[in-house]
Amino acid sequence: MTGIAIMGAGRMAKVHAAAIAGAGARVAAIYDPVTAAAEALAAQTGGQVCASPEQAMALADVDAIMIATSSDTHVSLLAQAVATAKPVLCEKPLAASYEESRAFIASVGEAAARKVFLGFNRRFDRGHASVREGVHAGAIGRLEQLVITSRDPSPPPLDYVPRSGGLFRDMMIHDFDMARSITRQEIASVTAHGSAIIDPRVGELGDVDTASVTMVTTEGVIVTILNSRRCAFGFDQRIEAFGETGMLLSDNPRQSGFTTYSAASPGTAAPILEFFMERYGPSYSAEIRLFLDCAREGRDMPVNAIDGHMAACLAEAATASLKTGQTIRLTGPDQDFAEILHAAQ
Amino acid sequence: MTGIAIMGAGRMAKVHAAAIAGAGARVAAIYDPVTAAAEALAAQTGGQVCASPEQAMALADVDAIMIATSSDTHVSLLAQAVATAKPVLCEKPLAASYEESRAFIASVGEAAARKVFLGFNRRFDRGHASVREGVHAGAIGRLEQLVITSRDPSPPPLDYVPRSGGLFRDMMIHDFDMARSITRQEIASVTAHGSAIIDPRVGELGDVDTASVTMVTTEGVIVTILNSRRCAFGFDQRIEAFGETGMLLSDNPRQSGFTTYSAASPGTAAPILEFFMERYGPSYSAEIRLFLDCAREGRDMPVNAIDGHMAACLAEAATASLKTGQTIRLTGPDQDFAEILHAAQ
Amino acid sequence: MTGIAIMGAGRMAKVHAAAIAGAGARVAAIYDPVTAAAEALAAQTGGQVCASPEQAMALADVDAIMIATSSDTHVSLLAQAVATAKPVLCEKPLAASYEESRAFIASVGEAAARKVFLGFNRRFDRGHASVREGVHAGAIGRLEQLVITSRDPSPPPLDYVPRSGGLFRDMMIHDFDMARSITRQEIASVTAHGSAIIDPRVGELGDVDTASVTMVTTEGVIVTILNSRRCAFGFDQRIEAFGETGMLLSDNPRQSGFTTYSAASPGTAAPILEFFMERYGPSYSAEIRLFLDCAREGRDMPVNAIDGHMAACLAEAATASLKTGQTIRLTGPDQDFAEILHAAQ
Amino acid sequence: MTGIAIMGAGRMAKVHAAAIAGAGARVAAIYDPVTAAAEALAAQTGGQVCASPEQAMALADVDAIMIATSSDTHVSLLAQAVATAKPVLCEKPLAASYEESRAFIASVGEAAARKVFLGFNRRFDRGHASVREGVHAGAIGRLEQLVITSRDPSPPPLDYVPRSGGLFRDMMIHDFDMARSITRQEIASVTAHGSAIIDPRVGELGDVDTASVTMVTTEGVIVTILNSRRCAFGFDQRIEAFGETGMLLSDNPRQSGFTTYSAASPGTAAPILEFFMERYGPSYSAEIRLFLDCAREGRDMPVNAIDGHMAACLAEAATASLKTGQTIRLTGPDQDFAEILHAAQ
Repeated sequence: MTGIAIMGAGRMAKVHAAAIAGAGARVAAIYDPVTAAAEALAAQTGGQVCASPEQAMALADVDAIMIATSSDTHVSLLAQAVATAKPVLCEKPLAASYEESRAFIASVGEAAARKVFLGFNRRFDRGHASVREGVHAGAIGRLEQLVITSRDPSPPPLDYVPRSGGLFRDMMIHDFDMARSITRQEIASVTAHGSAIIDPRVGELGDVDTASVTMVTTEGVIVTILNSRRCAFGFDQRIEAFGETGMLLSDNPRQSGFTTYSAASPGTAAPILEFFMERYGPSYSAEIRLFLDCAREGRDMPVNAIDGHMAACLAEAATASLKTGQTIRLTGPDQDFAEILHAAQ
Repeated sequence: MTGIAIMGAGRMAKVHAAAIAGAGARVAAIYDPVTAAAEALAAQTGGQVCASPEQAMALADVDAIMIATSSDTHVSLLAQAVATAKPVLCEKPLAASYEESRAFIASVGEAAARKVFLGFNRRFDRGHASVREGVHAGAIGRLEQLVITSRDPSPPPLDYVPRSGGLFRDMMIHDFDMARSITRQEIASVTAHGSAIIDPRVGELGDVDTASVTMVTTEGVIVTILNSRRCAFGFDQRIEAFGETGMLLSDNPRQSGFTTYSAASPGTAAPILEFFMERYGPSYSAEIRLFLDCAREGRDMPVNAIDGHMAACLAEAATASLKTGQTIRLTGPDQDFAEILHAAQ
Repeated sequence: MTGIAIMGAGRMAKVHAAAIAGAGARVAAIYDPVTAAAEALAAQTGGQVCASPEQAMALADVDAIMIATSSDTHVSLLAQAVATAKPVLCEKPLAASYEESRAFIASVGEAAARKVFLGFNRRFDRGHASVREGVHAGAIGRLEQLVITSRDPSPPPLDYVPRSGGLFRDMMIHDFDMARSITRQEIASVTAHGSAIIDPRVGELGDVDTASVTMVTTEGVIVTILNSRRCAFGFDQRIEAFGETGMLLSDNPRQSGFTTYSAASPGTAAPILEFFMERYGPSYSAEIRLFLDCAREGRDMPVNAIDGHMAACLAEAATASLKTGQTIRLTGPDQDFAEILHAAQ
Repeated sequence: MTGIAIMGAGRMAKVHAAAIAGAGARVAAIYDPVTAAAEALAAQTGGQVCASPEQAMALADVDAIMIATSSDTHVSLLAQAVATAKPVLCEKPLAASYEESRAFIASVGEAAARKVFLGFNRRFDRGHASVREGVHAGAIGRLEQLVITSRDPSPPPLDYVPRSGGLFRDMMIHDFDMARSITRQEIASVTAHGSAIIDPRVGELGDVDTASVTMVTTEGVIVTILNSRRCAFGFDQRIEAFGETGMLLSDNPRQSGFTTYSAASPGTAAPILEFFMERYGPSYSAEIRLFLDCAREGRDMPVNAIDGHMAACLAEAATASLKTGQTIRLTGPDQDFAEILHAAQ
């Protein structure tokens, strides 16, 4: 049974530990600077608590490495992991900042970067994957418009805002990756709009809680991303891909097929899936299985550090667009982004 | 423009007058024993008020005859109308009783009966027609089960119950016809169950307000009809046809594509169509157009007096089943029904 | 019965003539420079063919005036109609150009402009109206995001493109009005993106066939409008209003409640309404009824020439944004728009 | 951690072993006459392979007993399990025959029978449970009609038919229990209809593959159950409860919120859940959790051997009805059923 060393023992580490079991693998080692946390996770999983990342990664029964620590430790742990030559899966984001992300790619090189699995788990959501696969299979002919809606049930605590990096880097990062994975085209421009309409204090902290980004690909596909930090009716996560012969929609799945009919409510469906793990739990197991399969076969990871960096680029561009009120063109005068993007392709 | 003489100036006559205009024809003549009613309808339609059915039917600019009077006058007016050799459409039911219906068919003969259009308008409802056409076109392979649900928004006044003929003759008559038109098979047995669960006074009057009938065709298709005199959320009219390769469903259409999402109501659709004319209004125009087309071409009417009589037979059988607690077999020992049915085929 | 003089006897005049009959009024007079067209419409409606607009508008039995001619004649006919002091309904757009529209408002003044009913019929679509009414009634608390999708079944002939004024003025004009009527807020900025992705020849003619516009209101609501000149599955017309306590959706209504289930197609709904009149026909009757009601009561028209002008301003801004690649700010440095908009408020 | 002894190591035992793990308990012991099967399950679960049921049930770390063997061994194992005084969950059916079921209840007595959990897992399906809970909470006022549809994706092998006990005992048994659990009323009559319409060889073997049963409760609720051994589009499992103030529907859940729109398919939903474990897997975990909770608290089991027997009575009545062509009255002249039922209440 494949043994995995987990870096971190916090919330995302627990999510991944469950997914590891569901994928038929096992947690072999755990490192977390907070020893009590590591021990708690060890008690649940049977993994060995290690004193350092090096020790955990080096264990003989560790076949693969999972990085599920806080964002600011990702690149240094990644460097260590890559050095072991063992397969590695890093939870998103790739790095704490765009510059760090760029430096990481530059340091390991593109080939190694493509071997690092980057955990954009939403790609493995059943409905979202159906849209992507349908677009790629030509089910709607040429893609013309793409609309991605991501709304969280409720805003994070206000004190999280300053260290979040802003909505585009923290929340929309998933949607930037989704846009790239569905279109498979280079993004030519990014235009962002945003409001602190849910909570004006978010605006005072320099961030927004409601946003819309329009991107145009080099082939003219218009991508619209809608984000909100709050959604009264659950976890609103939809994708609409529109093309020459039709449309593919990933609508919100519901808790069951239960519907009530009354005079006041002539057809009320069951609630949509309300919490993160209810909606996306199964996608983490699918992710681990794919990671282990690719590792076994020595293939490039289908979603990797390059993808992580590209999503960071788009988040950076969106942040810049919001700040400047300008459209950021990624293959024109905004040379810096263009360089990065072309280098990374 | 085709001129039509309407017998009757009441509620159904008005429905048909509107449908006549919508079908590009005109009301040429009106007869109603209540002259004021006839005059009111004449004022709206421009039709000539006549002193007798004979006069109205005989007018030179009357090309076709519509019978929309009370049920107890249908067969005598039909006899007059058939005698004119002009095309005739008779509102359902064919007759006030099963015996009257049987006598009418016997008197005019099968060939003439097939020239009388019988107004089972629900056949022309867009969703219901799609189910029937799909079944006939083989969209679900061999038909195996058929479920017809018909629930009215609210019960009729209690004083209507004694003169209604009972739920099976008054309300389920449409569903018996629907079952025959979809299956296109002979009915072998009828088993009825019913309750006066909405209003016990209905039970004291010898009727039921909630009922279920199971019929089995000679080829083994099981047909279930569900009726209720009351439905809190509107006019609940559905059909489900199940066969070897799939299912066809005619669900309740809604007032619009409006849906509300909130914490308390995570996806509430717009109301279903609530009133008779809102749901079935368009079916009357479609009916008139088909009637006029068939008349023009001299064809047998696709829904005719034979169908009216067969539906009456099934209502009679259901009434007998409820009363006796027995399954009524239509091609076996229950000779009387069998004779009628075979004679009428 | 209210008598209406129709200017024009073309396609939209016929649509309105039918709506006039459906609203319980009558066509009293018709003017069209093509006399044969006027006579054809007169034969259907009974209206009197007139030799000039003046004559038609002046007839004693003309109580109200409908302008349904080509766009380039709207303002001159409006001037004549306003001079009669009879109520007037003008088909959209208000004028052939933004400048003409501005000049018209300036010439008649705001008070008179508010008495001219401007035919943005989509406001009266049942589903769309439910969204607007719900937002205004507070059903979703404070509005935060609004998404309007409008896709036509198929592109207009290529030779129409040069004289259409471009997609924003010709097609998105409805959506600009919809955005204003739902938000009831001033628009602070307009950013347009577009592609000639359906047909590159449209691009050679200087227009786009696929577009996305983002507008931000002065209160921070983010409005996204998506347009396409082609939709393989019918007339795709949806609105999604998202707010603090929920979401209101006007989804595409369907031809019926028919659904097919098979191995290959496990739940395929009936087609959405495919043609303009199938989807929006009822909205024209509702529009006429409201127009006549307001005229009778001497009220300002709820959708009037000011609205027509404001929508034209937004179309102008979107056109400018697409051309310049810049966001057009309507209450800031782009003084010209700001002036117009403020003057018109 | 609660230790459970599983009797049996076949298909259902594996289902339950997975559910035991999911419920936070563990398999402590396994008995199966086929030792290899027991050992295989032991390898997966860590349970101890035992040489006899007695041995397994008696182990000190066995806190509860699960019977998941073939139906003909249920009652003898149940007798042994009840004698241990440990909590026991028996997979449905309670017994191989109605007579055996009756004898078991008589031998252990009603009080002990109510302590035996009977595995009608569908009660714990999320959508179905919502209907039941809604009905019990009064969400639709007084219940008037109940329609239960259960259609399997494909028929069992033909050689299974003779030993299945027939469709009513083998397949509809779940629906009889569902009807009882939703109505919470005594059944007054059972009328069955059936056809061997999918495969005539089933008819030659004396069984049916398509059936409809109508039951009327003592309070007049009309229950309709529709069964088919084959459904082209998946596992068709629906419930519709209709009452005085509305309707509750448990529709088929879908694999995701994915929908495709094209000219040919204007809105095709994702497939419904196709396989038994995909649809009902979660219900087994919920069942085990409830069983362990009730055992811990010493409560009567909410679904118990009495329920198992009552469902067997209804299956027996339906079988008799189909054979005789008569309605079976359970509280009237059909004394034998009445006795059993009243004794068992």
